[in-house]
Parts: sequence; C-alpha cells; structure tokens
Amino acid sequence: MSSTAAPYPATPRTTPTRARERAHYDHATVHAILDSDYICHLGFVSADGGPIVLPTTYARVGSRLYLHGSTGSRPLRGAAEGLRVCVTVTRTDGLVLARSGMHHSLNYRSVVAHGTAHRVTDPDEHRTALDAIIDRIVPGRAADCRPATAKELAQTAVIRLDLREVSAKVRTGGVNDEPEDRDLPTWAGVIPVSRTLGTPVPDPAMSAETPLPDYLRRLLAEQGLRRGQE
Amino acid sequence: MSSTAAPYPATPRTTPTRARERAHYDHATVHAILDSDYICHLGFVSADGGPIVLPTTYARVGSRLYLHGSTGSRPLRGAAEGLRVCVTVTRTDGLVLARSGMHHSLNYRSVVAHGTAHRVTDPDEHRTALDAIIDRIVPGRAADCRPATAKELAQTAVIRLDLREVSAKVRTGGVNDEPEDRDLPTWAGVIPVSRTLGTPVPDPAMSAETPLPDYLRRLLAEQGLRRGQE
Repeated sequence: MSSTAAPYPATPRTTPTRARERAHYDHATVHAILDSDYICHLGFVSADGGPIVLPTTYARVGSRLYLHGSTGSRPLRGAAEGLRVCVTVTRTDGLVLARSGMHHSLNYRSVVAHGTAHRVTDPDEHRTALDAIIDRIVPGRAADCRPATAKELAQTAVIRLDLREVSAKVRTGGVNDEPEDRDLPTWAGVIPVSRTLGTPVPDPAMSAETPLPDYLRRLLAEQGLRRGQE
Repeated sequence: MSSTAAPYPATPRTTPTRARERAHYDHATVHAILDSDYICHLGFVSADGGPIVLPTTYARVGSRLYLHGSTGSRPLRGAAEGLRVCVTVTRTDGLVLARSGMHHSLNYRSVVAHGTAHRVTDPDEHRTALDAIIDRIVPGRAADCRPATAKELAQTAVIRLDLREVSAKVRTGGVNDEPEDRDLPTWAGVIPVSRTLGTPVPDPAMSAETPLPDYLRRLLAEQGLRRGQE
C-alpha cells in the first residue's frame, strides 16, 4: 500500500472525543502499528448481547486483516454470515511520570478497526492468511516450516476484516504538567518501555547441530538483547 | 486476597471451547496477570449494537478492577446506570516456532473478566482508585506526586468492575509438534519475549539535581536493562 494512498476516512466512531491531536488515519501510521505486535484484541457481541474481548494472533495483508481461529469457535460460527467486530492493537512505549497524579500517562500506539468480519473460505486465501499470521510472528518463517495439510486447513479457521473504518492513536513525548506544578520537587520524566527477544530455547528433541536460520538471526539482531547483555 | 480463597467459578463464558488445560480460576494466577500490565482492553456494546474495544489504564484493588476514564466519555456515560463490559489483559511471553505451520503459537498469559461496570461516585473510592491506577504503572508513585484537586477529580472518571466471572489462560513451555514431524530439518524452539524498562528520560524543565526516587530505582533494578547494557 503506497504511502500516498488516501487516508482512511474519519467517522464518528473513529474520531476521539478528546486528545484529537493523537488521532491518525494515514495508511503508513495505521499499518506500521498493525505490523508491530503479535496479538490483537478481537471484540464482538455474544448471542446474549454482551461484549466479548479475546486475544488472538493476526496479520495484515494490504488493507485486509486476518485473524486466527484459535480464539475458539464461538466468534467463528457467527462469522460465516458476517460478524460485527472491533479489532484493537496496542503497544506501550513509555511510562509518563508527571508531577501531578492527574497528568500521569502512558506513551502508546494503538489501532482500532471496526467492521464486519467474514470467515475465509477460499483455499488459496486461507493458506495465504495462515502464512501471513506465521510471518507476523517471525518474518520469513512460513516458508521454512511444513505447510498445512488439507486436514489441518480444515481444522483452522481464519476470519477477514477489510480495513475501512480504522484509526490510530499515538502518544509520544514528555510530561505535560500544569505550569504551577513545574517547581514541585517530584522527579518527572518518561521511562521508556520496550519489547525484547531473549536467547532462543531450542526444542530438546532437535539435533544440537541444527543451525539458527538467517531470518531468526536477523530478527534477534534487530529486537534481541545484544550478546553479553543477558 | 488470600491465596486460599475459593477460586472464581467457571461459567459457560469462562470455560474455553478448546485447550481447557490452559484455563485457571485461582485468585493468585488471575490477580498476578492483572497486576502485570499497564493497559487493559475494555470491550462494550455501543448504542448502535456494535462492539467497541478500547485500550485504557487500570488497576486491581482486591477483587475490584478500576478503569480510567481516559478512553473517552462514551463508555462512561453509560456506566452511571451500569455498563456490560468485558475486560481483557494479555501479556506475550514467547514465540513458539514449531516444525509445522499448524503448531506455531505464542506463550502468553491472559485474563478475561465479564460483568457490569459502574461509575465510581464515592469521593474516597474515586481517589483510592486513581492512586491505584498510578501505582499500577509505578508502585509507590501515587504518594510522591501532587494529589488531584477537587476540580481534577471532577474531570476524571473511573469505572469499577467487581471480579466475579473471570478466568485466566496461560500457555507456557515448548513446541508441540506432531510425532511424524520431529525429524524435519527446520529449527524449532521458543524465542522468549520480555518487556524492558529503559533509561529514564528526565523532564528538561526539572532541576538536574533532582534525584531518581527509590521506588523508581527498585523498579528499574527489577525490570530495567542492567547498567552498561543499553
């Protein structure tokens, strides 16, 4: 998706009631946040009218979001004919410690997507979606593992949400204290929060000579603890 | 809450349709997960009948969950008379890389709580809840910052959910490949995922002589990069 594509439209549901300056609708911002986490929170309304929020793995392919059926069959039974969903992805980036309790905050990036999800029934799309979900966890991994058999595919459900009504919210930067609080003696500032990958734990059943694949070395070089830091 | 308290009861909504061995109902497991994150995902049903999932700060106090009103006023308007909610907290602990695509997974800890939330109107409970939400971010912080004024309290809404119908799901351990896949040449194992606090970034407006408080030193000693690792 080109960064020059028209932004996602702002709608009443995707326009915040406060802190509007934190809202973003451009593809680059929305997609980068969606591509930065392992788990999304899938919301839907149960048969009895109550809200349900379940964590599940997912992936973005263009302007489509694919969610894995491991959240149990309840939402997926409904998705054959279309299930209204809200999918939210949130990363925490910092603890914002202000001088007043009131102005404590978090630095974060989140995306909220609304729409009607449908179960993926086309076999090619189903396979592509499952590969994308694996590659969301470790880019390059899907091509390196045994593909799903027809039986496995039949056991694994995927639902698709086309990204149409979607927005990002981002808070960055430092503390926003009231001017009259600036001279209080309390320490104020931001504690950065990051996610780190640790030393791989090989499956004990695997030959000790099995090399760590290049795509994993690359990922660890980008997001892992540097050697000697563990 | 004593660890010998009776577990939360399993209900149809809190009994998973699959991987039932991952479900936990004891207070110690449920509370520890709730006490391990900065953000929960709050689900509710909007006036038009659609699901909404918003990230927000929160804290647990005993068997009560308090959610901060910074998610916007929409859910809080409904909460005066009781709002059906589902609150979910999820931590990712590892990337589980199996030999088959099918058995890829994440190690994670999640809690899902169902119930009816109410807006907190008692001034003492309101203040206690806001302090707990600050202390969830940095334990000990609430006592070190300027308390909310009456005007600030009036601007800040908190909703409470009593924990009654709540369960945890936890996946730990290694890969669960099919026996016939064990000899495939693919690297298999787990990549640990952890959250790390970085070097504090002091507010530029603060005197350079302001010491880092003890509670922050302790937190960084527990969860921060060790000195020289950054």
